[in-house]
Amino acid sequence: MNRFWSDFVTRLQPYTPGEQPQSKNLVKLNTNESPYGPSPRVLAAIQAQSTDDLRLYPPPNAEYLKQAIAHYHGVKPGQVFVGNGSDEVLAHVFNGFFRQSQPILFPDISYSFYPVFCQLYGIEYQQVLLDDEFALPIAAFDRPNGGIVFPNPNAPTGRLLGLQQIQELLERHGDSLVVVDEAYVDFGGVSAIELISDYDNLLVVHTLSKSRSLAGLRVGYAVGEKSLIEGLDRIKNSFNSYPLGHLQIAAAVASFEDDDYFLVCTRRVIASREALTDALLALDFSVIPSAANFVFVTHSNWKAAALADALRQRDIIVRYFDKPRIRAYLRITVGAEAENALLIEALRDIVDSAG
Amino acid sequence: MNRFWSDFVTRLQPYTPGEQPQSKNLVKLNTNESPYGPSPRVLAAIQAQSTDDLRLYPPPNAEYLKQAIAHYHGVKPGQVFVGNGSDEVLAHVFNGFFRQSQPILFPDISYSFYPVFCQLYGIEYQQVLLDDEFALPIAAFDRPNGGIVFPNPNAPTGRLLGLQQIQELLERHGDSLVVVDEAYVDFGGVSAIELISDYDNLLVVHTLSKSRSLAGLRVGYAVGEKSLIEGLDRIKNSFNSYPLGHLQIAAAVASFEDDDYFLVCTRRVIASREALTDALLALDFSVIPSAANFVFVTHSNWKAAALADALRQRDIIVRYFDKPRIRAYLRITVGAEAENALLIEALRDIVDSAG
Repeated sequence: MNRFWSDFVTRLQPYTPGEQPQSKNLVKLNTNESPYGPSPRVLAAIQAQSTDDLRLYPPPNAEYLKQAIAHYHGVKPGQVFVGNGSDEVLAHVFNGFFRQSQPILFPDISYSFYPVFCQLYGIEYQQVLLDDEFALPIAAFDRPNGGIVFPNPNAPTGRLLGLQQIQELLERHGDSLVVVDEAYVDFGGVSAIELISDYDNLLVVHTLSKSRSLAGLRVGYAVGEKSLIEGLDRIKNSFNSYPLGHLQIAAAVASFEDDDYFLVCTRRVIASREALTDALLALDFSVIPSAANFVFVTHSNWKAAALADALRQRDIIVRYFDKPRIRAYLRITVGAEAENALLIEALRDIVDSAG
Repeated sequence: MNRFWSDFVTRLQPYTPGEQPQSKNLVKLNTNESPYGPSPRVLAAIQAQSTDDLRLYPPPNAEYLKQAIAHYHGVKPGQVFVGNGSDEVLAHVFNGFFRQSQPILFPDISYSFYPVFCQLYGIEYQQVLLDDEFALPIAAFDRPNGGIVFPNPNAPTGRLLGLQQIQELLERHGDSLVVVDEAYVDFGGVSAIELISDYDNLLVVHTLSKSRSLAGLRVGYAVGEKSLIEGLDRIKNSFNSYPLGHLQIAAAVASFEDDDYFLVCTRRVIASREALTDALLALDFSVIPSAANFVFVTHSNWKAAALADALRQRDIIVRYFDKPRIRAYLRITVGAEAENALLIEALRDIVDSAG
């Protein structure tokens, strides 16, 4: 507390990101990073940009990157907004579109940054209840609202809502903006971006932090109807003219230009997820069906917090959320094959030791 | 306009950054970048970070960078806030400290992003008048206010307010937060950071975009009393947990570790500014005394807009602001020695052609 803080600052309850230990001796399965590095072309692009030209401001609208993203998704550059990670993109989305007279809606179990953005911008919200298997019944959104947002696949559960259901939601809520946060869609879903030409009430948000192995770079984007994007640009240009530097733009462009590498990595993660799921089931875990690069699991004989502690003692970190309805669960990132093997070995050891 | 825009989005009048042409054939003296590239150590640090570790999230609080900045300025890491360029830092400052019951104050001629931040956050402001030589009479701030902000040296004029006057301002306004925006201070001023241990109502903002030759990287910071910084961290952690990526952090740390290079570059710019000033005076320009890496000039026989156009035809771009009180002026960045020579040659040609 400080006498110069604006009133609302005291009331903020900031988001708590997952731990980012700097030690290399940990098996880090807590924040859903890719186990594989970025494309070699990305690394080469960064090296090539490491020049005296860093003295110059970047292009404020990152045109090359918008073009690369538009080309990849088969949309126009004017339908693409880019930002400093998808959290910044989401923050601008909340500010630009969700300050409405009706509360916005999102699932009770979803990305825990959403209520924080609402606090930051004074936005009222209501949470709609997932069912007991963490599925999202779209009828739950049938109430007056100032907008809808949800992750798909959902986090931290990994459950996917099909494109047909998203379409039905868009039809039912033609007067609401529906924001689909597709941070994890490349690991098993179909992007709703293909619907944007049919629905002007749809905005889709992506990140390069997961499937493109670039959490350390900070790039995210949104795709939607042109005048939605213009609204985001108005906010961005009233906040920070140059959110992405030369290195970010060049690296992100290179990532979209190496589709082969992207496909190899995401397929490998998907295969690992299936193998990991089988191994966890064999250890008597229940595993929520995941379309993401993590699994959400519970064990009938073990408390999740105790399991997380026991894993931590073995230098393996996973994510535990001390929150209603999900206290019995752990969210475990799909790691490299060797990391997953270490995890399973540790869990077997822990579970057996109590047997 | 779009039916989903929050009400205030329509009313925003976003900031217009200076032109960032991608052509290399221009003499670019319009956005106050350094004519010299960043330290070779910075480039090496980026190369060294271009690895598979980019798949991992960066440290959310950028501790290494805070330590490097704190060490450089002789303060504690807890007195340092870092962000994605000083515009982002300033945006959080306005949101976190300037939403007060009284209007905030800034000079009528100053950084044109300030009124834009006020619009974005619904902050009332009043402008205090610079005198006819663009000096800032600190008595002009003597009125009820919710905070004070000004660039020092001022932009786009380059005029410096001395440390003693800043101290007097801090004394007179002990119940107001005073934000000194020192984007250009390394080119001829003394930083007010040395006053923060004596004044808990002082916050000083810096950028790496000018004197550290890193406009393309996007790093800025603020230094002030610990609980002020905590307020900024609360906002940042409610907006974007990871505003700086690995490359930004490593490059910025390397810049602070190469003080020799920094001093050589800033001294060279200062020497060039003095030479450029003399050459402009010889062409009958009036030159406002500058402590920045640009000069603010007017010519009795030429309209500034016409001069800017004539320079543009010769592939030289400078900045012209079509605004009250400064329509007769051009802001010209101090370029490399050869660029300044081209500028002077072109101006001589233009001015003589009319003679």
